[in-house]
Amino acid sequence: MSAVDRVAEPAGAPAEAVLFDQRDSGVAVLTLNRPERMNAWGGGLAGAFYRCIDRAEADPDVRVVVLTGSGRAFCAGADMGDLDTIGAASETAGHSDVSQLVGERHPAFVTRLRKPVIAAVNGACAGIGLTQALMCDVRFAAAGAKFTTAFARRGLIAEYGISWILPRVIGWGAALDLLLSGRTFYAEEAAELGLVKEVVPAGELMPRVLDYAEDMARNCAPSALAVIKRQIYEDALRNLHDTSAAAEKLMHESMLRPDFIEGITAFFEKRAPSFPPLEEETP
Amino acid sequence: MSAVDRVAEPAGAPAEAVLFDQRDSGVAVLTLNRPERMNAWGGGLAGAFYRCIDRAEADPDVRVVVLTGSGRAFCAGADMGDLDTIGAASETAGHSDVSQLVGERHPAFVTRLRKPVIAAVNGACAGIGLTQALMCDVRFAAAGAKFTTAFARRGLIAEYGISWILPRVIGWGAALDLLLSGRTFYAEEAAELGLVKEVVPAGELMPRVLDYAEDMARNCAPSALAVIKRQIYEDALRNLHDTSAAAEKLMHESMLRPDFIEGITAFFEKRAPSFPPLEEETP
Amino acid sequence: MSAVDRVAEPAGAPAEAVLFDQRDSGVAVLTLNRPERMNAWGGGLAGAFYRCIDRAEADPDVRVVVLTGSGRAFCAGADMGDLDTIGAASETAGHSDVSQLVGERHPAFVTRLRKPVIAAVNGACAGIGLTQALMCDVRFAAAGAKFTTAFARRGLIAEYGISWILPRVIGWGAALDLLLSGRTFYAEEAAELGLVKEVVPAGELMPRVLDYAEDMARNCAPSALAVIKRQIYEDALRNLHDTSAAAEKLMHESMLRPDFIEGITAFFEKRAPSFPPLEEETP
Repeated sequence: MSAVDRVAEPAGAPAEAVLFDQRDSGVAVLTLNRPERMNAWGGGLAGAFYRCIDRAEADPDVRVVVLTGSGRAFCAGADMGDLDTIGAASETAGHSDVSQLVGERHPAFVTRLRKPVIAAVNGACAGIGLTQALMCDVRFAAAGAKFTTAFARRGLIAEYGISWILPRVIGWGAALDLLLSGRTFYAEEAAELGLVKEVVPAGELMPRVLDYAEDMARNCAPSALAVIKRQIYEDALRNLHDTSAAAEKLMHESMLRPDFIEGITAFFEKRAPSFPPLEEETP
Repeated sequence: MSAVDRVAEPAGAPAEAVLFDQRDSGVAVLTLNRPERMNAWGGGLAGAFYRCIDRAEADPDVRVVVLTGSGRAFCAGADMGDLDTIGAASETAGHSDVSQLVGERHPAFVTRLRKPVIAAVNGACAGIGLTQALMCDVRFAAAGAKFTTAFARRGLIAEYGISWILPRVIGWGAALDLLLSGRTFYAEEAAELGLVKEVVPAGELMPRVLDYAEDMARNCAPSALAVIKRQIYEDALRNLHDTSAAAEKLMHESMLRPDFIEGITAFFEKRAPSFPPLEEETP
Repeated sequence: MSAVDRVAEPAGAPAEAVLFDQRDSGVAVLTLNRPERMNAWGGGLAGAFYRCIDRAEADPDVRVVVLTGSGRAFCAGADMGDLDTIGAASETAGHSDVSQLVGERHPAFVTRLRKPVIAAVNGACAGIGLTQALMCDVRFAAAGAKFTTAFARRGLIAEYGISWILPRVIGWGAALDLLLSGRTFYAEEAAELGLVKEVVPAGELMPRVLDYAEDMARNCAPSALAVIKRQIYEDALRNLHDTSAAAEKLMHESMLRPDFIEGITAFFEKRAPSFPPLEEETP
């Protein structure tokens, strides 16, 4: 939750809250599209996001998902509405009010998808917007993009799993610094900390991210992506022995899929592979 | 445990082993004050440290704690006394002897406090002194400050939780390097590894750390700091789903505290927040 | 699994698949020695590796192990043989076929040895070769050495524990990037990510690694190395309280060994310590 500049006027035409752009390359670009509210998170935006991402997850033509924002922000935090709304939410603090504020799903649902989600952090990324970005698998950021956890400065707590993912992405010491201080930092520091993979000049952000995502969509087997993504999150709490034993089983399964023969054959023939789309039942 | 230069004469006047400086800003500065023994850890110093930190934890006027050392060292390791003492400790290796050497509490007790503890590593930081620094939440270091785990070079083991916290702060590979080699490294490398947040010229260390701590004391809700600190350490062994579920509950609780309304109101009014001190029963 | 250039002719003389070089300094250098196959992993090479490393583990004169490769590669992945072999393995995917391909032990067995293993990554390090390098305790790399996980590009999964160790070494975000994209990266980026400790010009790699390993062999107690190595891997899934309690017990045990007195005495006398070799029953 964090900085949301409130504008005097509500948005004019009822534009779609999240844009869905399916590209030929196997990449779907989802764009948070409430620029006048800095893509602040809330019931409306969140609901549209769930619909778009469910569509991407279900569509066999989508192999990799990119998430970005329109305007100056990626997502500036929860949409705090006005003080009356907040007051009501605070007094009741019932589930319905809170989910109205932050959406019906916990941001961590993105880690359980079978398809990789790449965040293109185009601008301000704060509070639950930062939590959501951290639940994406890989992050790129535009130079100068502003980040903050913000929670401690609003009397709030480490929301919805950021206390799990942030230390694992940047280490416990850096996570304590960012979560306890609630200070503002920029894309450049985020890259040094490993919070984002790369900083790119703003104008080159989407070309760079699309290049990365399209390479993945073209050259990596969707079945492999689904299994590997699951492994990395689930093996976080397994011991090394069990992880390796589970990997052996998964490896046998992967060797029975046509993807394996295609991957090796393409490699030996020095050509691009042609992997089938992700099937519903596997892996 | 590590380098402690032994001096020919004991300290003259019985200075306090740890200084307590309560500042108006809500920050308490604790200074390890056995410079003639390089603030080597042991029964006397440790006991004074516990008393000071208990006082800081209990005092509602203290919101953030800073820990530093006087003289050339932050803490150069366990106070090895002389070889006779060591020989006796080694022969019996009874609890009493060891706790005489390292103090009655495990360094990890600092992670269970409700207030943030910031280390200002002014100089040599070795052995159990490094373990203690790592149990602080955030670390700054003076340029050129010397670090070493030292244990392997003394025939000792990874003491009191450093095998838990060091890999989580700098990664398992770097932790294996530092703990297996027992090599000396400097503040600059410590910063590159993420072991310290920042390196500052020696003369600017305390101003910089106070600036950071005072910003936190002024702008962050004590209730939020207490919850967030607990989340980061406790969620280390939780899975992501349980972490997010626990965060939802904590978020509801935080929205019932006046801190939340004050945090949001101050934000909208573009003024500094005025958060109440930490109460005993919450959070 | 990854890039293995297949050569037209098999190797001439039956050279040893892994060379064992016991040095006076207490360091044993193991060299993967199938340069014509880029030290591709497989039954023959793996078996020789197990024999060499078992010998190093058992020999009291060996205190530290260094692992490197001859020729252009460290280990370019699994030895895929030809497409017929692969096809057969894929059709049956039986244990015997797979273990023929990758060896009888999971790479993680290296983390359970009592002696430190240092990888000198002299060149290409891919697929299971990268997994094996990550199971070493510390890694150095030659400038320009090429790395890739490769799995996703072959329709395979995160093999044999790399989904456990890679996130812990470089963080979950960077690990997702490298494992999902399967992209190629170089020693310089590996060092920035913390995947290797240092990048060294190719001609200086072995002197640098030997210097590091010999310092460890000369100055660190073998008993301490064995305990510390075990702590770091085993404490990964313990909580901080239990880790610290276990460390207290290990510390008492270490203080009963002669290594402790020798370590402290040598330190006070400003001379190199003389630690006994690792005994079979301890620690």
